[in-house]
Amino acid sequence: MSDRIRARYRIETATDVRRAAETMAGEQSSGTFLAVPGETPELKRRSGARIEQIELLDAVETPGLPGAARGPRYQRAEVELSWPLENPGVSLPNLIATVTGNLFELQAFSGLRILDLELPGAFAERYPGPQFGVEGTRRLSGVEGRPLIGTIVKPSIGLDAGETADLVDTLCQAGIDFVKDDELQADGGRCPFEERAHAVMRVIEDHAQRSGKKVMYAFNITGELDEMRRRHDLVAELGGTCVMASLNSIGLVGMLELRRHARLPIHAHRNGWGYLSRHPMLGWSYPAWAKIWRLAGADHMHVNGLRNKFCEDDASVIASARSCLTPMFADKPCLAMPVFSSGQSAAQVADTHAALGSTDLIHAAGGGIMGHPMGVAAGVASMVQAWRVAVEGGDPAAFPEFRAALEAFGKSTSGR
Amino acid sequence: MSDRIRARYRIETATDVRRAAETMAGEQSSGTFLAVPGETPELKRRSGARIEQIELLDAVETPGLPGAARGPRYQRAEVELSWPLENPGVSLPNLIATVTGNLFELQAFSGLRILDLELPGAFAERYPGPQFGVEGTRRLSGVEGRPLIGTIVKPSIGLDAGETADLVDTLCQAGIDFVKDDELQADGGRCPFEERAHAVMRVIEDHAQRSGKKVMYAFNITGELDEMRRRHDLVAELGGTCVMASLNSIGLVGMLELRRHARLPIHAHRNGWGYLSRHPMLGWSYPAWAKIWRLAGADHMHVNGLRNKFCEDDASVIASARSCLTPMFADKPCLAMPVFSSGQSAAQVADTHAALGSTDLIHAAGGGIMGHPMGVAAGVASMVQAWRVAVEGGDPAAFPEFRAALEAFGKSTSGR
Repeated sequence: MSDRIRARYRIETATDVRRAAETMAGEQSSGTFLAVPGETPELKRRSGARIEQIELLDAVETPGLPGAARGPRYQRAEVELSWPLENPGVSLPNLIATVTGNLFELQAFSGLRILDLELPGAFAERYPGPQFGVEGTRRLSGVEGRPLIGTIVKPSIGLDAGETADLVDTLCQAGIDFVKDDELQADGGRCPFEERAHAVMRVIEDHAQRSGKKVMYAFNITGELDEMRRRHDLVAELGGTCVMASLNSIGLVGMLELRRHARLPIHAHRNGWGYLSRHPMLGWSYPAWAKIWRLAGADHMHVNGLRNKFCEDDASVIASARSCLTPMFADKPCLAMPVFSSGQSAAQVADTHAALGSTDLIHAAGGGIMGHPMGVAAGVASMVQAWRVAVEGGDPAAFPEFRAALEAFGKSTSGR
Repeated sequence: MSDRIRARYRIETATDVRRAAETMAGEQSSGTFLAVPGETPELKRRSGARIEQIELLDAVETPGLPGAARGPRYQRAEVELSWPLENPGVSLPNLIATVTGNLFELQAFSGLRILDLELPGAFAERYPGPQFGVEGTRRLSGVEGRPLIGTIVKPSIGLDAGETADLVDTLCQAGIDFVKDDELQADGGRCPFEERAHAVMRVIEDHAQRSGKKVMYAFNITGELDEMRRRHDLVAELGGTCVMASLNSIGLVGMLELRRHARLPIHAHRNGWGYLSRHPMLGWSYPAWAKIWRLAGADHMHVNGLRNKFCEDDASVIASARSCLTPMFADKPCLAMPVFSSGQSAAQVADTHAALGSTDLIHAAGGGIMGHPMGVAAGVASMVQAWRVAVEGGDPAAFPEFRAALEAFGKSTSGR
């Protein structure tokens, strides 16, 4: 690990690739469009971004994005740049301006996407990372040796506090490990946060008294800073074990302040991720983006799921999840528990395990649990059984709930 | 103004447009992929998003974005949805999840972009809006009847505090109204914030003593919350009149807290905007995005400039700037001063005035001022002269500095 910040990009350009990379390096450090008198060779050597590597990929005939300088063909490449740490300093907010900033608007590029980030150890010293991560989440939920099986309160929005608690009651009885609010439900007029927290925690505590198992409920505390702190404190007082926040709604300063305040795991929701990532030649790749939030303190990170109902392909989902489980620094791994969701059921378990090679995840299923033909408890059981078979081997036919799930939700093993 | 939240989108889909719009409305309110027992007709009527309008546009043969459901052709349309205010409540962070959220990842769409937002008056009651806006900025800078003529410290990064102050000295002598830090320079190791603030404000106060004119300097205070507050306070103590923050680095909670604390105008930098907007069928349009930040308290909003050095066309730049000067609410207009920059000089003034129909802007030029053939003071003079001619009429030839700028930077009036 050097004392330089490194970032890797996928680019596409009609101009010479090296010249394009020089434009990137200039724009994001000492240069500008015009040569200015102050940019001396010495200043440039000291403060300029450096091109570390260029790897040519394929060339295409149609530009990925409109608005760029045209040419007969558009060369794709991977480019790695590096910056002196002293440019932004050890500051996550200013790091973002340095590694992204105006890059995506440059005319030289018909495609530009940040793929990954590598940060000097000083970032690990300054920033907290996850407070709970995988181990803390397992400790609080009491689930070992398999993923936490979870679900989301549905309908997304429209239930009042009592109706939400009734649903949670059903889920607790069914043996669920983890439940989360939908990202659309935080403190709506029909389901105010405080009422919901009281009603839901009453149910969860009742079940915990009887069964010894406290279901982890991720309360969506997304809001302004004082609201998030207040809501977090209420959840903690009521015996709750998790809070959730929408990263793209609160932003990095909100997350850093929440982490500073929190004594519960932070379930980080990525809704809005599509506008950051949907085009493969634009925006952020998940590993780069997630590193910022992991370092800021996210304990759980959403990664979509295999054969999901959205646009993302399986390879991308697995790369995202793996990145969350790959150490960022030797002495501060900042591992976050990946959250698999969207169209999930017992039918995706074998492939998920095979591709990820780990059980350190939250596996959230909506229809796969609530819509199980034998009922909600069978839905939960089918997920637990599927993970047992995936890890230990065995015949799905020996587990009626798992078998029923495969029949209902399909047993295709081919990802898109 | 109703008590519903409204959002307008541009979409592209291979499926039936109304069904696609229903998918949007369902995903972002009470629905989910699967019919769930709790989503009763009554709940749906009460809490569901509603399709207010669908307007068909053209159809295309190639999908705008990959990953979507395929078809022989892809129909484009504008869709307006509305939500009951009680869904997210009067909450900007939760509004974001409601109007964007997972929409951009839905398989039904090969394009989806949010175009505009209309909010109930309750948002105007809860949120502060700009503290200074156009009037306050004019009062603090003493500039009336024309734009503030501005520039950016260049090289972007690499100068130390003393070198920055020397450059500011030159600019003050040249008669500039406004100077800003580059977004890459906040509190770097070579140019620590406090040193820079002291050195720059010493120069600005000296000039103000002599000339009676206090140059407005937007100090980039981007950082964590306590850093931003401390830096803001230092600037205020030193007699400074503006602070700057990178919106995509700090996020909405950071901005709301900064606004709560601030007693100086907030110069809102949009770097990173490209990853939110570069593809015309994805992400955010500026008017929708800027409304959130205006309501949160941004006084100045970057909008790029005519014939800029980036990818954005002139029509989009002008639409952005106009949106900042268009009232959001009758009793709370939330007008922010648009900041034109990127490749600007006196050569774009006439077109900018003609297209915008206003002088309420900050017109920032780098090369157009620093690279003026007759020197920096002539660069500033050329901008002032160009605006006088644009507003009052007259012959550019009567102004040697303006004439020289036109000769040096081109007089083309055709935008891209």
